Amino acid sequence: MNYTDLDKTAAWAVLQTLAPGGRRFDFSAALTADRVRAASAPMAGGLAYNWAAKAVDKPVLAALAALADEQELTAKYQALLEGEIMNTGEQRRVLHHLLRGQQGKAVIHEGRDLGAFYQKERDRFFAFAGDVRSGKLSGPGGTPFANVLQIGIGGSDLGPRAMYIALDNWAAKNGGKKLNGYFVSNVDPDDASALTASLNLAETICVLVSKSGTTQETLANELFIKDKLTRAGLDPRRHIAAVTSETSPLARNPAYLDSFYIDDFIGGRYSSTSAVGGVILSLAFGPETFRDFLAGAREADALALEKDIAGNAALLDALLGVWERNFLGYPATAVLPYSQALARFPAHLQQLDMESNGKRVNRRGEAVAYATGPVVFGEPGTNGQHSFYQLLHQGTDIIPLQFVGFTESQRDDDVEVDGSVSQTKLKANLAAQILAFAKGRDNADKNKYFPGGRPSSLIHGKQLTPAALGSLLAHYENKVMFQGFVWNLNSFDQEGVQLGKILTKKVLAGASGDGALDAYSGLLGINV
Amino acid sequence: MNYTDLDKTAAWAVLQTLAPGGRRFDFSAALTADRVRAASAPMAGGLAYNWAAKAVDKPVLAALAALADEQELTAKYQALLEGEIMNTGEQRRVLHHLLRGQQGKAVIHEGRDLGAFYQKERDRFFAFAGDVRSGKLSGPGGTPFANVLQIGIGGSDLGPRAMYIALDNWAAKNGGKKLNGYFVSNVDPDDASALTASLNLAETICVLVSKSGTTQETLANELFIKDKLTRAGLDPRRHIAAVTSETSPLARNPAYLDSFYIDDFIGGRYSSTSAVGGVILSLAFGPETFRDFLAGAREADALALEKDIAGNAALLDALLGVWERNFLGYPATAVLPYSQALARFPAHLQQLDMESNGKRVNRRGEAVAYATGPVVFGEPGTNGQHSFYQLLHQGTDIIPLQFVGFTESQRDDDVEVDGSVSQTKLKANLAAQILAFAKGRDNADKNKYFPGGRPSSLIHGKQLTPAALGSLLAHYENKVMFQGFVWNLNSFDQEGVQLGKILTKKVLAGASGDGALDAYSGLLGINV
Repeated sequence: MNYTDLDKTAAWAVLQTLAPGGRRFDFSAALTADRVRAASAPMAGGLAYNWAAKAVDKPVLAALAALADEQELTAKYQALLEGEIMNTGEQRRVLHHLLRGQQGKAVIHEGRDLGAFYQKERDRFFAFAGDVRSGKLSGPGGTPFANVLQIGIGGSDLGPRAMYIALDNWAAKNGGKKLNGYFVSNVDPDDASALTASLNLAETICVLVSKSGTTQETLANELFIKDKLTRAGLDPRRHIAAVTSETSPLARNPAYLDSFYIDDFIGGRYSSTSAVGGVILSLAFGPETFRDFLAGAREADALALEKDIAGNAALLDALLGVWERNFLGYPATAVLPYSQALARFPAHLQQLDMESNGKRVNRRGEAVAYATGPVVFGEPGTNGQHSFYQLLHQGTDIIPLQFVGFTESQRDDDVEVDGSVSQTKLKANLAAQILAFAKGRDNADKNKYFPGGRPSSLIHGKQLTPAALGSLLAHYENKVMFQGFVWNLNSFDQEGVQLGKILTKKVLAGASGDGALDAYSGLLGINV
Repeated sequence: MNYTDLDKTAAWAVLQTLAPGGRRFDFSAALTADRVRAASAPMAGGLAYNWAAKAVDKPVLAALAALADEQELTAKYQALLEGEIMNTGEQRRVLHHLLRGQQGKAVIHEGRDLGAFYQKERDRFFAFAGDVRSGKLSGPGGTPFANVLQIGIGGSDLGPRAMYIALDNWAAKNGGKKLNGYFVSNVDPDDASALTASLNLAETICVLVSKSGTTQETLANELFIKDKLTRAGLDPRRHIAAVTSETSPLARNPAYLDSFYIDDFIGGRYSSTSAVGGVILSLAFGPETFRDFLAGAREADALALEKDIAGNAALLDALLGVWERNFLGYPATAVLPYSQALARFPAHLQQLDMESNGKRVNRRGEAVAYATGPVVFGEPGTNGQHSFYQLLHQGTDIIPLQFVGFTESQRDDDVEVDGSVSQTKLKANLAAQILAFAKGRDNADKNKYFPGGRPSSLIHGKQLTPAALGSLLAHYENKVMFQGFVWNLNSFDQEGVQLGKILTKKVLAGASGDGALDAYSGLLGINV
C-alpha cells in the first residue's frame, strides 16, 4: 500500500487544472430533473445519497475517481477491516466495523478472535438488558427500573445521546421503548445536580462509560451520583453497570452490577455500535432495536467496499468533500437534517469529523501543506432556516451543505393546515432550500439578490428507522475514514486533547509553572 | 454620519500594513501574568472581558481604535438608540435597547412614545404572569398551570430557549421557579407530537409567538396543539396567550387569553428582552427575575456608549473580531461556555451573528469586497474538549475562541473528588485550555506538537445570575451591531430567508415551475 500526501499525487495536479478559480459552477443550466434523478448512489437501510446539487461535472468526477484509485482508498479500507494497524500513532488496529459484522478475514489479536469477543459482549449486554426490561433485575424492593442514566463524555456521550434521541420516538411508536434515557457528561456540577434532583433514583440504573476508567470528568460525575444514591438510602452497587476495557479499574469490579468490555481498537467517536452505545440503547429500546441498527451499519460497511465511486456513497461523499475543501477552498460544512429526531446528530458528526481529521501532520508525523478536516456544524431544519441560513444564502463565504430528509415522520401523528400536513411542509421546505441555494435568484435590488452557487447533497429515505440510522452513522464514519486516507492522515488518534489535560492537572496540583496560567486561574477564583 | 465601506477607510490601509502575513503572534513571549491582569474591560452584571490571549499589540489596538473613530461606531449606536432608521432595507428603527431602558432621547413614532409602549406591555405581561403564578388564572377546575409551552421559531425560539435554560437552575435554587418551560419550534410533526404526548395539557399554558402572525411553522404547530387540547376536552382559548404585533391576526383576538405586543422595531433575534422572551421567563421564573435580567442588559447598553475601546468591552470585542476576520483571515469563531447553563447560548449567538452580518451587500445594496460575518458554532466545555477541540488545537485552520466561565456554580451542589470539587475542575480546564491554545507546546514527535498561536477571549464573573445573563446577551448584541457598522452592513434585516419561503409555497401549491425542484420533491415523496 502506498501512503502519499494528497499534493504529491498525480490526481492533485489534474484537479488543480479543473479548479474553477473565480468562476462559478452554473447550476441554472446543469441542475435539471434528469440530473436529480441520475445523481444518486444507493445507501444501506433504504437510503440514497443524491449529489445532483454538487458543483461537479464529468471531468471532475473522473479525476476524483482517479484520485480514489491512486490513493487506494477501498484497498486501505479492506486492510483496516482485516486488522491492519491504521492508528499508526498509537499502533492500534481500528475495528469498529467488526462490531457490526465481519466483512473480511477474521481479526485475531494475541490469539483471540476479536469478532467473537465483540459478539460475546453484545450477547452479554443483550441478556443484561433483557433482565432489566423484564424486571428480573430491578431496584430496591423489586421496583422496576424506569430510567437509564449514561455517565460519560465525548464519544461516550455525543454518539449514544444522538442515537438515543434519533430512535426515541420510533421506539415509542413501535413498542420497543421501556426505559427513559438520560445523559450526564459535563464536569460542571450543575449538570449532574439538576439531573439527579429530577429523577427518582430508586428507579434509575446508570451506565458508567470510560474505556480507560480514568476519564476525569466521568469519574467525578460517578462519585457525584454515587453520593446522591447513598444519600437516598440506595446501594450504588445495585444501580451502576460499567462499560470499559478489560484492563481498566472498572473491570471485574464488585462496585458495579456488571461490566461490559470494549478494547483499544474501538475509538470513542466510533463506539456508538459497541457497548458504549449498545447498553443504554438496548436497555431503553430493546436488543432487537439495537440489532436492527447494527444491521443497517453492517450493510453500509459492505457497500463502502464498492470500487466504482458511482455506487459507493461514502466514498463519493468523501471525494466531493475533498474537492470542496482543497480545490474550491471552502473551510466549513453544515449538516442540516430535516428531522427533529436528528437534533443532536450534527453534534455527533462534529466530533466524528473534526476529531478524526482536524490534523496538521500526515500518518508519518510530517506537516502537510494542504487543508484537512473542515469545521462541521448544524442544526435541524426548518429551525436553521429561521436562523443562520441568512449567511448560508447571502454571506461572503460559501458553505457546502449536507441535507437529510425522510418521506414519513416517526410518530405518524400529524395535522393538516392550509391543505398540507406538517411532514409535507417540512419536506417542501427542504426541496425548496436545495434549489434556492443552488440556483439563487436575480433581483434588481441587490439586497434581495441570491447569488446561488451554494452546493449541497441530500441523503433521503422513507423513514428514520433503526436500520436507516445505522446506515447514516456508518456512512459518515466511512466518509471520514476515506477523507483521512485521501489526506494521508491518521484519523484514529486525538493527540490534540492531551496538552489541556496535562495543564489542567498542573493547575489542580497548584503548580502550573506559568504565570499567565496562574493569573487566569485567579480570574476564575481558583486559589493558586 | 458617514457610511463607508471598510476597505475605503484610512484605517483599512493602516491595518493591512500591520497584518502579519505568515508570521505568528508570539504568545510565549507576550502572554504574561501582567498582560492577563491588565487586558480587561469591565462588563455589566459583574462580568469582565479579558482579551490577553488575543493576537494584538499596541499598534494594532491603536489602529482599531482609529477605525472605531473613523467609522463613528459609538455615534451610530447613539443614533440607533434615539430611533434613527438603521434597518435601511426595511426602513425601520432598531429599538431592542429601548426594551431595557431609555439611553438617550425619547423615541416618538407616529405620536407614540415607544419606550412607554414597551414598558406598558412589560407591565401587562408581568401582571399576567403574576396571575398565573398565584393561581388566579388557572386551568379547568382551578388546576394551577405547571407548564408553559412556547410555540415559535427562529428568534421566537432560540433566544428565549437559551435564556430559559440559562436561568432554570438559578431560579430553582433561588426560589423564583414555578412553572416548567418547554418549546416547540420545528414544523416536523414529531416535535409537537412527542412534546404534547409527554405533558399534562390541562396544566399547560402556551405562549404563541409570531410578530407577523403568519409564520408558517408556528401556525402549523399552533393548530397541531389546539387539536391536542380539543381532543383532551380542553378549550384552547383558555390555554394560549399570544405575543405578536398590533397589526397581526393574533392581536385582540378572542381565541387567546391575552395578547402582548411588540412592533417592527424589535427584530426576532433581538427579541429575548421583549415579550417574546419575557412572557415565558416571567411565567416560569417570576417578573423579578426577568427585571434583573433586563437590568443587566441595560447596564451593558450604557457601557457600550463608552468611546475609549479599552473601557467598552462590546466595541473592543467587535474590533478584535474584525481584525481576525479581515486581517488575519480566520473564517469561523467558536463560542465555548464552561457552564452547562449556557448549553444553548451558542445556538442563539449563531443566529444573532450569522443572521445579522451574513451579508454580501452594504447598507446601500452594493456588493462589498471583503469578508463579513463568520461562521459561529460552539458547545459547552468541558464537553467540547472531548470532541472538536482536536481540530481547534491541531487543525490546519485557526479558529478564534470565545470562552465564558464563572467562579461559582448555580446550584451550589458539589462533591470533592481527588482534592477538588467539580466546579474547580471545570475552571481549571478552562484556564488550561486558554494557555494550551495560545502557547502550544513543542515536541520532537510532531504528532504531539501543539503549534499554539490560537487566540481566545474570556468573559468571566462570579456567577451566572439573571443580571449576568442580561449583560452577556446585550454584550453580544452590541458586538454584532458594532461589527455591522464597521462592515457598513444593515445588520437588522434578513432578506436571505425569503427565497426559500417563496419556493416552499410554490411546491406546496403544486406549481414550482422548476423540473429539478419537482424531482427533489419526488425523491422526498411529495406528490407533484
